[in-house]
Amino acid sequence: MQEPCNRDWETLKKDRAERLKAAAHLTSNGKFVKYSDAVELLQCVIKPYDIVNIEGDNQKQADFLAECLCRVDPKVVNNLHMVQSVIALPEHTGVFAKGIARKLDFSFSGTQAGAIAELINSGSVELGAIHTYLELYGRCFVDLTPRVALVAGVQADRLGNIYTGFSTEDTPAIVEATKFKQGVVVFQVNEIVDKVPRVDIPADWVDFIIKSPRPFYIEPLFTRDPALITDAQVLKGMMALKGIYAEYLVQSLNHGIGFDTAAIELLLPTYGEELGLKGKICTHFVLNPHPTLIPAIESGWVRSIHCFGGELGMEEYVTARSDIFFNGPDGTLRSNRAFSQVAGHYATDMFIGGTLQIDRWGNSSTATTTRISGFGGAPNMGCNANGRRHSSAAWLKCGTETTGKDNAIGGLTRGKKLVVQIAETFREKLAPGFVEELDAVQLAKNAGLSLEPVMIYGDDLTHIVTEEGIAYLHKCCDMEERMAAVRGIAGYTELGLSADPAETRRLRELDIIRTREDLGISITNANRSMLAAKNMRDLVKWSHGLYHPPMRYRTW
Amino acid sequence: MQEPCNRDWETLKKDRAERLKAAAHLTSNGKFVKYSDAVELLQCVIKPYDIVNIEGDNQKQADFLAECLCRVDPKVVNNLHMVQSVIALPEHTGVFAKGIARKLDFSFSGTQAGAIAELINSGSVELGAIHTYLELYGRCFVDLTPRVALVAGVQADRLGNIYTGFSTEDTPAIVEATKFKQGVVVFQVNEIVDKVPRVDIPADWVDFIIKSPRPFYIEPLFTRDPALITDAQVLKGMMALKGIYAEYLVQSLNHGIGFDTAAIELLLPTYGEELGLKGKICTHFVLNPHPTLIPAIESGWVRSIHCFGGELGMEEYVTARSDIFFNGPDGTLRSNRAFSQVAGHYATDMFIGGTLQIDRWGNSSTATTTRISGFGGAPNMGCNANGRRHSSAAWLKCGTETTGKDNAIGGLTRGKKLVVQIAETFREKLAPGFVEELDAVQLAKNAGLSLEPVMIYGDDLTHIVTEEGIAYLHKCCDMEERMAAVRGIAGYTELGLSADPAETRRLRELDIIRTREDLGISITNANRSMLAAKNMRDLVKWSHGLYHPPMRYRTW
Repeated sequence: MQEPCNRDWETLKKDRAERLKAAAHLTSNGKFVKYSDAVELLQCVIKPYDIVNIEGDNQKQADFLAECLCRVDPKVVNNLHMVQSVIALPEHTGVFAKGIARKLDFSFSGTQAGAIAELINSGSVELGAIHTYLELYGRCFVDLTPRVALVAGVQADRLGNIYTGFSTEDTPAIVEATKFKQGVVVFQVNEIVDKVPRVDIPADWVDFIIKSPRPFYIEPLFTRDPALITDAQVLKGMMALKGIYAEYLVQSLNHGIGFDTAAIELLLPTYGEELGLKGKICTHFVLNPHPTLIPAIESGWVRSIHCFGGELGMEEYVTARSDIFFNGPDGTLRSNRAFSQVAGHYATDMFIGGTLQIDRWGNSSTATTTRISGFGGAPNMGCNANGRRHSSAAWLKCGTETTGKDNAIGGLTRGKKLVVQIAETFREKLAPGFVEELDAVQLAKNAGLSLEPVMIYGDDLTHIVTEEGIAYLHKCCDMEERMAAVRGIAGYTELGLSADPAETRRLRELDIIRTREDLGISITNANRSMLAAKNMRDLVKWSHGLYHPPMRYRTW
Repeated sequence: MQEPCNRDWETLKKDRAERLKAAAHLTSNGKFVKYSDAVELLQCVIKPYDIVNIEGDNQKQADFLAECLCRVDPKVVNNLHMVQSVIALPEHTGVFAKGIARKLDFSFSGTQAGAIAELINSGSVELGAIHTYLELYGRCFVDLTPRVALVAGVQADRLGNIYTGFSTEDTPAIVEATKFKQGVVVFQVNEIVDKVPRVDIPADWVDFIIKSPRPFYIEPLFTRDPALITDAQVLKGMMALKGIYAEYLVQSLNHGIGFDTAAIELLLPTYGEELGLKGKICTHFVLNPHPTLIPAIESGWVRSIHCFGGELGMEEYVTARSDIFFNGPDGTLRSNRAFSQVAGHYATDMFIGGTLQIDRWGNSSTATTTRISGFGGAPNMGCNANGRRHSSAAWLKCGTETTGKDNAIGGLTRGKKLVVQIAETFREKLAPGFVEELDAVQLAKNAGLSLEPVMIYGDDLTHIVTEEGIAYLHKCCDMEERMAAVRGIAGYTELGLSADPAETRRLRELDIIRTREDLGISITNANRSMLAAKNMRDLVKWSHGLYHPPMRYRTW
């Protein structure tokens, strides 16, 4: 028998104890640190080359800690490897510009998409990969475990129990991965109280707590003003409802962010009702509490909604609708991005969302050569879940229609998730939505990526909706036919103009392409008058005054 | 604007309050109930047609509560819909036999596989679906949310905080889904203490706590005695190591349960060392703490292991190896099946495990006509994760070798997960491991299932290892070639005998089939002498006495 080696098996634990000891002089009551000592705390507990996670959710930003990390001395703290789901604040890119961090693994960048692209192209950031959220959480438990997590809560009690509030989001996943691999967990909270309304993170999972000088930053990312929905979006929404929702009777689903899906939500109580679909579609959602879903909820369409995070202004409404949302005994929402993404992957029949570009093969991406925006949850929900083993009518119908099954699995039965992209043939500044080649291809070359950053691959995509029609891609017998279907609904883009009218006609006969006329939708009805709410004020009325839009949306 | 309906939006909350009130007379200190009142408690908080989850993990059974549920009056509690990951105890099927429960959605059944099949065939159980674990958790947040959860912990403190112990497993997922949709959470615990070593579930997520008359049942499910590993398993393990692990340099992976993967684990410090693979493969695992992995850990092969659950006897060893495992500040393992399955799906490059049957197309299943055993986590880990967006050398190499990419996604790059099945051409009682048609097909007909219960589909499977050789299925250009590859390694089964020797030769030339000779493995070395530990006692020695096997394994 070979001799076992006699190494020290508790290096992480000892290293952790050293870090805590180095910071001990900054604490009172064991774990509370003054915000004026926050930068020094980070210099005590973070070491060069550490993997560090700054919580940067869509709805809840550990912004004070991000700012503090930007202010550490790069001679003391440097070469950090940032592993975080969202790059949303200037400080998130600032740590790279200042030489504090070096490597980045992330999922989504909003307003920082341009800055990230610049930093990568200039060599200031070494990019690991752009992940889908759930994938990044998974890696936190395998090869990207954070050494230090900088996270945010609403309140802490005197023992250190944390109430994350309405937007729990990523916090449980990050904290669990960090704390249990002997890492260090630092919370910023808005206030310290005697008793938290609910314990979201137990005190013994928390090392340091700082009462932030200001509440954490929060963005109403999922709020869409109905007044800005266009007639074209209404038309596409009606086509999607009749040609996809009604066709497959989709009950469990996710709606991506955007005006297209907001239009669909506002069409449920009107056009959806007219089509007799109430109770037959859209009963179970996985999504943030979209204000534009209020009319459908109030009209009794929706039975259950599990949320990734919260949405500013929706707090009171969600509390008052505990039959629909997942609320705690304290009355407030318990969101959880990890579980919601699990549900979005495995327990929904459809993902529908928008994109910037679709290529000739049907692959789509939101990355361009100057903006690396990441994909958040889209690849996870917008892919066929090969591990799924339960059946539903929608999933089975889509699977039955899908070609190529015999070559894949022989004579057995299998369903397929509906993955739908709503696209405009032309976006703002006349940029075409359909292109020969994705910008992602050039971006990958420039940045030396081993994969083109593709949001949804063509073989996962089942439907594209444009103002020209719906393409049912999964029904195509091969790539040639799929390419013809993409061209056939690409309108006046260069790609669309290359379509062969005879081929497009043939695809319409095969029900692979269906135009507005094929679907029997009258253009005279397809306008804003169909929306159940025309503006923010209507949404507030629908909510019985329970929805409180942020000031910037209060135009009345 | 349409009028919103004026319904009651808090029916679940009120119903929950009623149930708690009905049980109030049984409680002391708010939530503690005597075990002699447990049956009455269940009759107060469970109503007919409820969705009920009994925690039945691999390692931790809410067995006392299961027994109590079996003893409720079917006139009071009936038509329950059981949604639970594991059917492992006679009581889990007993509730159906007694008319207390009616419908079942589950993931895995061990010893109850035969009983489940009988109940379904006799019409006593209406089967929803057989899920992969993560899928079932997902549905708990969408359309299968439990109304009542019956779960197990090691300790509760006087406030009701729960310490789940070494085997946290499903508890957080079940409790979160139930509690936040206004459901009722009932814990059985082994003891009530003043202070728990760690809070795994906060007190305000818990409604009732019962000190069980005996500790919960726990099964050493992942323990394999090295003395029972056969020479044939050593040979297959060596072939897998040389033909797959070394070929793709797989670093992050899951090993299924079984003697085949136990053999591989015990070959790492010997044959793996000989091949110069230390540090190059098997550095990051997602699996339960397999005792057979001790020699590889002690020899410095492994950097990180995240666990679904614990394993009896491994407690002290895991505590002493905090650099490798995810342990709490209290020193004990924090396992978590939901996060481990997320990691297994998205953050590992390979799944390798065993099966009972593989059909001519390469589909595999462990279901037979008389046993519905379910698949646990296998479909989730043993499928290509289409949402994955990060790259690794192993994943990219497998993707590059995979045929059919152009027809799927055009000119873009994509990797593929290695999904490996180790099979015996003949199992016990000479049952063939390769068959024309899976028993699952007949089972689906008999039980009226809309899908055949398939564990791993042929198009997800990349490699099959038998004593005859390795088939690299993903390299096959079409179904014809894949079927020939399956036949080519199916030995003396009827399917194997139908192989055309010329075709098999051609596949060997293409490196689609590689035999032991092709791999250059000498039969003289391929025997038990290669194992780093030959028996349980060797494992204990390797562990420096930190591993304490259950009595039944202590044969020395």
